[in-house]
Amino acid sequence: MIPFRAPVDDILAAFRAAGAAHLPGWDDGLAAEVVGHFARFAETAIAPLDGPGDREGCRMEGGRVRMPAGFVAAYADYAAQGWPGLGLPEASGGQGLPAPILGAVTEVFAGACHSLQMVCGLVPGAARTILRFGTPEQQALWLPRLASGEWLATMALTEAGAGSDLSGIRTRAFPVDGGWRIEGEKIFISGGDQDMTDRILHLVLARTGLPEEGTRGLGLFLVPSHDEAGGRAPVRVLRIEEKLGLHASPTCQMAFDAAPATLLGEPGGGLAAMFTMMNHARLDVALQGIAHAARAHDIAATYAAGRRQGGRAIADHADVRRKLTTMREAARDARQLVHTALVALESGENPDLVDFLTPVCKVMGTEAGIRAADMAIQVLGGYGYLREYRVEQIWRDARITAIYEGTNGIHALTLATRLLRGRGSRAAEAFDGWAAQRASAGELAQWREVRDRVLAAEAPEELAEDFMHATIRLAAAAVAGFSRGTGT
Amino acid sequence: MIPFRAPVDDILAAFRAAGAAHLPGWDDGLAAEVVGHFARFAETAIAPLDGPGDREGCRMEGGRVRMPAGFVAAYADYAAQGWPGLGLPEASGGQGLPAPILGAVTEVFAGACHSLQMVCGLVPGAARTILRFGTPEQQALWLPRLASGEWLATMALTEAGAGSDLSGIRTRAFPVDGGWRIEGEKIFISGGDQDMTDRILHLVLARTGLPEEGTRGLGLFLVPSHDEAGGRAPVRVLRIEEKLGLHASPTCQMAFDAAPATLLGEPGGGLAAMFTMMNHARLDVALQGIAHAARAHDIAATYAAGRRQGGRAIADHADVRRKLTTMREAARDARQLVHTALVALESGENPDLVDFLTPVCKVMGTEAGIRAADMAIQVLGGYGYLREYRVEQIWRDARITAIYEGTNGIHALTLATRLLRGRGSRAAEAFDGWAAQRASAGELAQWREVRDRVLAAEAPEELAEDFMHATIRLAAAAVAGFSRGTGT
Repeated sequence: MIPFRAPVDDILAAFRAAGAAHLPGWDDGLAAEVVGHFARFAETAIAPLDGPGDREGCRMEGGRVRMPAGFVAAYADYAAQGWPGLGLPEASGGQGLPAPILGAVTEVFAGACHSLQMVCGLVPGAARTILRFGTPEQQALWLPRLASGEWLATMALTEAGAGSDLSGIRTRAFPVDGGWRIEGEKIFISGGDQDMTDRILHLVLARTGLPEEGTRGLGLFLVPSHDEAGGRAPVRVLRIEEKLGLHASPTCQMAFDAAPATLLGEPGGGLAAMFTMMNHARLDVALQGIAHAARAHDIAATYAAGRRQGGRAIADHADVRRKLTTMREAARDARQLVHTALVALESGENPDLVDFLTPVCKVMGTEAGIRAADMAIQVLGGYGYLREYRVEQIWRDARITAIYEGTNGIHALTLATRLLRGRGSRAAEAFDGWAAQRASAGELAQWREVRDRVLAAEAPEELAEDFMHATIRLAAAAVAGFSRGTGT
Repeated sequence: MIPFRAPVDDILAAFRAAGAAHLPGWDDGLAAEVVGHFARFAETAIAPLDGPGDREGCRMEGGRVRMPAGFVAAYADYAAQGWPGLGLPEASGGQGLPAPILGAVTEVFAGACHSLQMVCGLVPGAARTILRFGTPEQQALWLPRLASGEWLATMALTEAGAGSDLSGIRTRAFPVDGGWRIEGEKIFISGGDQDMTDRILHLVLARTGLPEEGTRGLGLFLVPSHDEAGGRAPVRVLRIEEKLGLHASPTCQMAFDAAPATLLGEPGGGLAAMFTMMNHARLDVALQGIAHAARAHDIAATYAAGRRQGGRAIADHADVRRKLTTMREAARDARQLVHTALVALESGENPDLVDFLTPVCKVMGTEAGIRAADMAIQVLGGYGYLREYRVEQIWRDARITAIYEGTNGIHALTLATRLLRGRGSRAAEAFDGWAAQRASAGELAQWREVRDRVLAAEAPEELAEDFMHATIRLAAAAVAGFSRGTGT
């Protein structure tokens, strides 16, 4: 077993190259201190749980979910150290730190233990959604609870009959006594229950209008697991799914039996609120992929340097060397792109660029993670297929990232349609302008050629995957000058 | 769960397109009957064990390996029906059927349960090696035991210190009383022990000479688990490895404590004997990959036809349709190439072509299986990540095929070096001649261009992967006319 090492230097280099220093109030020293502090915590307190957690998994006990051994204590430390509130406003008990630092902590957390990060990771997105759409009363009630780590949050969107197609959602919200009740079943709820916090705030997408209204009849609701008197709400876990990986992240099927709820924003405004939450989650998913890529590279490089064959380390064999280089560059280029998006998000100066980069980051980061894990398995050969070095767990855990928060195919479709035409053309133009300053004229021309084919196509969906990968190539070229020159 | 369906029609079409009918004594009706018979057995008696076997796995009990529930009974049926002896000479109690029929049974078996096929699947290769290198006495003793299914066989090559590098083998063979004894440890022995047969014949690679002789000092030995009086030989399983997949195939670490052995062939001839066994195994591994590709396609196509989204079956969505087509064609093209090799192997008319096609089949078939399993996960989305539809198990089981029997990287290296230069140039010429009759001039010219670059390169290993994939593309083009026009 090769211990987890957080890629702190590479992350700090990504801050620099992304221009984080130009953000108002940015403090390089503070950033390094926060990331370094979390890295030490992740290396010593979180990463050791990742392998045992995978083997033990979560289980149901008396209708409640039990996390694997050690998770409850690790979360208690995490909350006591203030990590849940890192990006939340100081007025709510948070630390108000900017998005790139949050992203760095997400990456390190996911590299140490993707499962635990999954269960904790929805807090910033939930908080951001409450900040944007919540009433002052909702904000005053919920933000301090999330910042303190007393409550964790979930995102309950998917239903059995409606995967990526939210117009089919049947969970109902109905008004009762000036409030709302939620009735229905949801699937694929990460951390739908756990025993690390006593309370959980579910953000639930439910139908306020008629089925024929499609997604326009949806609202996003806050559904607390407990009422203010401490009584349990009628929210039940029906089962934990058996999955390929992420065994320490309980993926729950849940029933809401007329559970009391408050509406976030307007009835019919559920989709807009959900996208705020999901766009945040998508960059987080990209960072999960990057974390896997960096971890897979670290294990493979360490193994290959020590394993001798034919009189020399296999790291010197042509195909192993090529694989290691690919893994390292994929992690760095994708990290650089995500931090470009996070700096732009934080500055608010180029929202169109953020719109365009979000699906690109999601696909680029997750493909980097899955591919690097696969390459690491191959570099280790027979040992890669064993549990011993845990590259197989990296692949199993990473594989979901191409599926959740919108499959990679759906993001490619979004890029080739919504983000290229009509109002979306502003997003494509922002990307073009950004890339033009960084990539070569030839690289830019290649991308524009694919873009123009997509724009001229009668069926752009047929070219969606090509366009996504042309965009990833251009984005990689644009950031490569920075990201490949850094670190070790 | 979507039940296993053996792709019998596609296999029979591959026989026809590969020209099996021209083999002496070939009987189309008999071939269809045998494959159909095995398909029914595999669908009803073997496939239902695959999922439960994956969950239960193998375990050690009192130093012996226990297979998962149902495996002992299924093997007893398999042996009683005469399947172990399918390709063995009739004089030894076998049925003397030709290589393409054996290949068809291997594919169907692996599609139903790769793990069980692994444990049973070394019998034909062991028998072929004994037929080629064994004395008449060795043949008379061992072939009937293998044909009847009373004994199973293993291949014990790898050691902890020597993965793909056999010159580092340290297991020793030393002569005692006119026989030999084997002393040493081996790893990664599939079916090193099990409780389906009372006896196991281990084919063990061991050093007869001095370490400095490298691979020239190796011999291949027959090491029975029991002596003729029924006593247990000093052969022990030290542990079963914990793996990503193939949980129902016990991968054993084994110790030979001066175990009695007989030499197969000459001292120093171990590598030649081993390659006979491994070349057989490599085409089998290609068929395992093809089995996974066909099974993954079947599940994904069935799921996609039934799952509706946005008002239509997802099978009609552009990216799903493209994935399904890729999966189907990859399975068919690779199957067609393997049967081309098997017909040539059986006829003995073009051994150079068989030499060249063997590593190409291995890489093409295994990449088809792994890629199709990955695509099937993506087609099923969140459900692909669950255990329910078992596409995740296909990926986990398939992933080893790119590693064992020589990693795919090593086969690419062989193709770009040994099979292209010196004596090997005959193999490349045979492939060129075969492809020239089937592919277009343009397709051929593209391959020749890459081949010429490899021949001119100072470091051909840098181009090995490109050359392998150029060869796979040409091979696919050469067989596509046949394989893509067939079946449903």
